[in-house]
Amino acid sequence: MTQPNEVGMTYADAGVNYENLDPFKRKCQMRAKRTYQNAERFGVYGREASRGESVYLMKVDANRFGEHQMYVGHVEEGLGTKNLVADAVRKITGRSHYRQIAQDTVAMIVNDPATVGIFPASVAMHVAVGSDDWFTDEERADDLVQGWGDACDLARCIWVGGETPTLKGIIISGTVLLSGSSWGIAPKPGVMDPKNLQAGDSIILLDSSGIHANGLSSARKIAERLDEGYSWKLSDGRSFGEALLDPTHIYSGFIEDCLDAGIFIKYGVHITGHGWRKIMRADAEFTYILEKVPRPQPVFDFIQKHGPVTDREAYSTFNMGAGFALFVSSHQVRGLLDFAEKHKEKYGFGAMEAGHIVRGEKKVVIKPKGIEFTANTLAVR
Amino acid sequence: MTQPNEVGMTYADAGVNYENLDPFKRKCQMRAKRTYQNAERFGVYGREASRGESVYLMKVDANRFGEHQMYVGHVEEGLGTKNLVADAVRKITGRSHYRQIAQDTVAMIVNDPATVGIFPASVAMHVAVGSDDWFTDEERADDLVQGWGDACDLARCIWVGGETPTLKGIIISGTVLLSGSSWGIAPKPGVMDPKNLQAGDSIILLDSSGIHANGLSSARKIAERLDEGYSWKLSDGRSFGEALLDPTHIYSGFIEDCLDAGIFIKYGVHITGHGWRKIMRADAEFTYILEKVPRPQPVFDFIQKHGPVTDREAYSTFNMGAGFALFVSSHQVRGLLDFAEKHKEKYGFGAMEAGHIVRGEKKVVIKPKGIEFTANTLAVR
Repeated sequence: MTQPNEVGMTYADAGVNYENLDPFKRKCQMRAKRTYQNAERFGVYGREASRGESVYLMKVDANRFGEHQMYVGHVEEGLGTKNLVADAVRKITGRSHYRQIAQDTVAMIVNDPATVGIFPASVAMHVAVGSDDWFTDEERADDLVQGWGDACDLARCIWVGGETPTLKGIIISGTVLLSGSSWGIAPKPGVMDPKNLQAGDSIILLDSSGIHANGLSSARKIAERLDEGYSWKLSDGRSFGEALLDPTHIYSGFIEDCLDAGIFIKYGVHITGHGWRKIMRADAEFTYILEKVPRPQPVFDFIQKHGPVTDREAYSTFNMGAGFALFVSSHQVRGLLDFAEKHKEKYGFGAMEAGHIVRGEKKVVIKPKGIEFTANTLAVR
Repeated sequence: MTQPNEVGMTYADAGVNYENLDPFKRKCQMRAKRTYQNAERFGVYGREASRGESVYLMKVDANRFGEHQMYVGHVEEGLGTKNLVADAVRKITGRSHYRQIAQDTVAMIVNDPATVGIFPASVAMHVAVGSDDWFTDEERADDLVQGWGDACDLARCIWVGGETPTLKGIIISGTVLLSGSSWGIAPKPGVMDPKNLQAGDSIILLDSSGIHANGLSSARKIAERLDEGYSWKLSDGRSFGEALLDPTHIYSGFIEDCLDAGIFIKYGVHITGHGWRKIMRADAEFTYILEKVPRPQPVFDFIQKHGPVTDREAYSTFNMGAGFALFVSSHQVRGLLDFAEKHKEKYGFGAMEAGHIVRGEKKVVIKPKGIEFTANTLAVR
């Protein structure tokens, strides 16, 4: 953009410079274009002619839904503060780590709707910075763009565009806020619904990749207190910082494929804020009994040791190795575990049968740890 | 939420306290519930049973679209920095002004899609703070919640939920970032499309209410330099600060009703960032000739005088009294202006025929001001 060459205050003086921003927007558009076919399984066709307009258009083949009602969902989600860890770790590794950060953000957006069987048709990006020179770091910008595009491919959705405001006085200069939204469709309406839960149902836990995008405030606080900060070596030889940056799994595709394979999943819980307390998210009177827990990744051992963080606090805050909980009838367990085992390499995570639900006081009981979380510890749904 | 009473670091220590947050979330849910019928005109029915789940569900009556294809849009938008003005002006007026700020945010989200005939079925909220004590200011929190709900009513959409992260280290403590997203439907697919533009079409300008939500960085800079800051009196006797906070009009309902009344609107432009340069947003070779301009509100006179800001810079940055441009065939002008005049009180703004488009070099010519903006001044679409 050419700034008008006249006497007087220009908008650039006030801290907004479209020259810094526009190359990033164009990179986003180039990568996003390649996602336009990602929702055709739902009869949702991206209209690339509308890219760059004020809203991205999608054509929906309504006939595909026939006599049925179509169920859709719309959600807004954010990454949290995990990108601050990437910024700090970059000083050690020399790499931006924003490919992972992008996947974390998209995962946060699409995993939640998947708990009730809504899978993403579209995802929009929100990248707010305190100073627009943030966008001039090409490695980081490229990583963010490519990572976001790859995550949309993994989540099977159209990247419909986004918003990239410079918010001087709101965002701290040098940092970025990452968030976004998704519009999705229920290919099997009513199959995943907390109302389907019954006493006797099994609890299947899907592996996490590590800390995901929750509890990073605690992790950062620990790193600040340690002499070696993010450079500290974990029991597996990796550094604390790099382990923290393992990206959140995108679970939506796995769950969608389970439903397609005829596995009747009743409901799911994305284990994020509130940790394992989230397992009792359904508005129902059940006790959730965990007989087994996955082995937490070394990053959790490290956080517990150096916090110090008690088991109770750890399971009430972090995913502790389990990123998602699925609820199925007992006769569906074998099919689900076989499916997960067979395709473990494709999705990048495994599954375990960890417990079951019984009628009774609403609480989560983690037997191997002797922990109970009662309903009052999860006040908001 | 009851915090576990054990030795060790708790999540609250790390700066996240759900006790501050939850009352705000509950207030949002209470107000949002009352919007669930707002999209029934599209056959979109909110499912209140899903409120509080990880995604808000909507049932779409696909049969309503019959043989037709359904067109939908999904957009992410943000307010910018206008809330910093509200925060500063509050020190003078003693009022939070966040009702207006909420409307500004929703307007930014729904006005853009309306340019191509997408009207909102749902809106989601994103409220990110640097410190969660932001939510403990009840007057401001109530204003934000009620204002957001009222704006969703005005925009005729379901408030489907949102995200309220505390982002210490990213957002400056005491401030808030407001943004959100919308999923919308085209009730008349193809009617509003930049491809419909033809030489000879008329340009109709819809009145703005004032500065709306763009160019606030400049306005804040001016206030900082003035002795009396936001207290300065404008020519109409109002203070600079209060005038800046007049909320952005929500134009989507007016445009939707025009289409319903059989007025064929070919395309629209939401005059936001890039000011009147935005009028040439369509990817087409036209010259946009403005024969008339609305009288800018006193707030613009004040900004131009105290910037100083030249006419050229002002029209390239601010809406200068025109918040939205509509393009119609010349024979539709009378109908549109009559409709606007008849319902001026209902929508809160009027319309004027301001010019027309001709085949030729892509540029905006503002005749009364002797200004031309050529295509290279609007590099990004």
